[in-house]
Amino acid sequence: MQVRICVAPSPGGVPLETGVRPLAATRAHDLTVTEVRLTPILVADPPLLNTQGVHQPYTPRLIVEVVTAGGVTGVGETYGDTAYLDLARPLADALPGHRVTDLNALPALAARVCGDSPDATGTGAVDAAGLRGVRTADKLRRSVVSAVEVACLDAWGKTAGLPVHALLGGKVRDRVDYSAYLFYRWAAHPGGRGETDDWGAALDPAGIVAQARRLADAHGFGSFKLKGGVFPSDEEIAAVRALAAAFPGKPLRLDPNGAWSVATSLRVAAALGDTLEYLEDPAAGTGPMAEIAAALRAGSAAPLPLATNMCVTTFEEIPEAFTRGAVQVVLSDHHYWGGLRATCELAALCATFGVGLSMHSNTHLGISLAAMTHAAAVVPRLDHACDTHYPWQTEDILTERLAFHDGALAVSDAPGLGVTLDRDRLAALHRRWLDDDGALRSRDDAAAMRRADPDWRVPAVPRW
Amino acid sequence: MQVRICVAPSPGGVPLETGVRPLAATRAHDLTVTEVRLTPILVADPPLLNTQGVHQPYTPRLIVEVVTAGGVTGVGETYGDTAYLDLARPLADALPGHRVTDLNALPALAARVCGDSPDATGTGAVDAAGLRGVRTADKLRRSVVSAVEVACLDAWGKTAGLPVHALLGGKVRDRVDYSAYLFYRWAAHPGGRGETDDWGAALDPAGIVAQARRLADAHGFGSFKLKGGVFPSDEEIAAVRALAAAFPGKPLRLDPNGAWSVATSLRVAAALGDTLEYLEDPAAGTGPMAEIAAALRAGSAAPLPLATNMCVTTFEEIPEAFTRGAVQVVLSDHHYWGGLRATCELAALCATFGVGLSMHSNTHLGISLAAMTHAAAVVPRLDHACDTHYPWQTEDILTERLAFHDGALAVSDAPGLGVTLDRDRLAALHRRWLDDDGALRSRDDAAAMRRADPDWRVPAVPRW
Ligand SMILES: [Mg+2]
Ligand SMILES: [Mg+2]
Repeated sequence: MQVRICVAPSPGGVPLETGVRPLAATRAHDLTVTEVRLTPILVADPPLLNTQGVHQPYTPRLIVEVVTAGGVTGVGETYGDTAYLDLARPLADALPGHRVTDLNALPALAARVCGDSPDATGTGAVDAAGLRGVRTADKLRRSVVSAVEVACLDAWGKTAGLPVHALLGGKVRDRVDYSAYLFYRWAAHPGGRGETDDWGAALDPAGIVAQARRLADAHGFGSFKLKGGVFPSDEEIAAVRALAAAFPGKPLRLDPNGAWSVATSLRVAAALGDTLEYLEDPAAGTGPMAEIAAALRAGSAAPLPLATNMCVTTFEEIPEAFTRGAVQVVLSDHHYWGGLRATCELAALCATFGVGLSMHSNTHLGISLAAMTHAAAVVPRLDHACDTHYPWQTEDILTERLAFHDGALAVSDAPGLGVTLDRDRLAALHRRWLDDDGALRSRDDAAAMRRADPDWRVPAVPRW
Repeated sequence: MQVRICVAPSPGGVPLETGVRPLAATRAHDLTVTEVRLTPILVADPPLLNTQGVHQPYTPRLIVEVVTAGGVTGVGETYGDTAYLDLARPLADALPGHRVTDLNALPALAARVCGDSPDATGTGAVDAAGLRGVRTADKLRRSVVSAVEVACLDAWGKTAGLPVHALLGGKVRDRVDYSAYLFYRWAAHPGGRGETDDWGAALDPAGIVAQARRLADAHGFGSFKLKGGVFPSDEEIAAVRALAAAFPGKPLRLDPNGAWSVATSLRVAAALGDTLEYLEDPAAGTGPMAEIAAALRAGSAAPLPLATNMCVTTFEEIPEAFTRGAVQVVLSDHHYWGGLRATCELAALCATFGVGLSMHSNTHLGISLAAMTHAAAVVPRLDHACDTHYPWQTEDILTERLAFHDGALAVSDAPGLGVTLDRDRLAALHRRWLDDDGALRSRDDAAAMRRADPDWRVPAVPRW
């Protein structure tokens, strides 16, 4: 697949230049979409472990560019797995002729032109990787719509001279805090594949503390999240205790991605109840989460909050989870939820029901990190530092990487998202995607794990 | 009180001209607020009856104008009672220097500078007029913020050349249906006060049907709402049946403003269950509404839906009402809820919980009618025709009245709200407010009723 040019009503089918181009005054503010470009890429990913396996050496992302009749290009980013790419193509075809302000119409347009992905498994089914919650047709489409929405907001903002946060009603904070994302990891990918780095292995409490120290020193992070579900829970309890001793008073979180039984979850909560800021997805599904939350409420006047980016990832899942008190913090992901404006709606739902809000990360590059920072800047309540994989993503497609200071990103007031695409980097990472035999075009942490352990299968849940 | 000019960082304290004024290119798109004008007015209102009394001959409204450094003026409108005016003054003082895009910051700004109105009666208390639900400090402030938000959106839209609906993510429909709002009424105000009209009295089924016919003929309305709670319920049941006979197949609604007991509500629901589209606020409060809804569910597989603009008028009231299934339709009012963007958040909450959405009206003029039409144009689901008092409001402050065709308003694609203020009309209606001795500056339907019946007191609830 070439970098794809959907030339629609654009003049003579000649691809427009990228970026802000001065045009005659009558067209300079024309917000009509004339062209959409989809560029799938593969990005280096270190050998980070989770309960399903290990990150593959390269992970797919999809870059969406929307060009207006005014000659302005906006950029968006989303999951790049083939299932998303297949949905993005018909939406990209249908978009020219719409305006970048026509955002409310996107979900219905996507439903009409994309249809249901054959990869959707219906409400209640969990995706193959098991880490992103249900995999409904609507949710897959929303993940694609989100990138289009962000690209439209970027183009609109560049045209109007307004930052994306202004198009969302204006920032209410000038900086957004992020958390250090700690992973058990190997020193290198099995078979020496992929890129190398100097982080070494982290497979025990001392390794996790050393990793935390380096991330904190480099970026100023003041809170820490450990991706768990990798080792028996006692080892992960020990790691959290080691972090608490090394970083006294700093907020800590543990996320086993639903790997535990209710009993194990309650045992961990009892051990770490005074140590953790929240416990993230200890068990899989709203039922077990509600059971755990109820037991914690029965046992304490200030129970350990439960957070999720697995059992509440769609609007359909909210009523049951909120009315049962199954979760106290929703970790939003603007890709899942359908964009930055949908994230604001989710924030309103959470505020109304007294549920906290923070944000989830999934190997995002700078475009999505910038986009989520704009969303995080505008929600009235943001209760916890957001997650980010960005320090692990050593490759990006921006001319200038986003930089954390004191663990936070400054909210950009530049027009649009405030980022600039590096076309050479984009082309190079797209070339990697073109050269792949297909094995890496959809994320599969279990397949990666089988290179180290041929008998590895995605563990049954609960794993412990 | 004069038409009030809050000149803040504007050049030399010279009031700017109103309206779109061509400025140097560097300033033409400057969205900074330089000036806010508050103009309280009194507007003619016919002698419409409700369970609390009768409309006074004139009703107060507040017109808000926001002027930008680019020389663009945006307009908003809200309740004009003195309590709202007192909150609007400090907010108007605080606004210059902010941008018209700084909308998310408005609630916190209002909370800081306005404080709590002495007229707020705390959560759970109902306002004096009893028709607008709880009267919390936050809700009063939101009603003022809503007018500022609408004025900001109007100014932003005019500056950007975009309709307000585009600033809300774009319309998903080209027309918004409205319902004919039927009232029991007298031919004239007691003592011959106020303006006269040729509608005559409507105090029985024949009078209501005649009124409905005239409204339908004039505006093309295809659905009808009767304001009830005025007469014993059997008389109102008879009026609805007469409407059903006169307009077969047309959606009908009945709204006694919470005047009935649970038993009376269930008796009316049994009598009209097959006739009504929904029953609006039969009883006062979420508890009684939940009781009625549960009984209707127990008695029918397709129970008569209950609608409200009284027991769910704030985000705080949503969790109990939605989890108990107390209401099936929320009639939003962008004044109550804090603006057009908050109305979109309410729409997301309703959609998530499977609750229908339509819109409430309270003697709005053309600015608020235009504003609610933009909001109604963008919400994904709008389940019923919206309410409007507009046909009863023979006075307006626009150069051109909005016109219903086939019972609907076309969604304007003109920049901003798409309405133009008539300054002469505004000045005349403000003069009326200045000349009032204070008796009309806060709506009091019971006081108006006492002119006909000196012993009249606001009836205890339930009245029947
Ligand atoms: Mg997680
Ligand atoms: Mg009502």
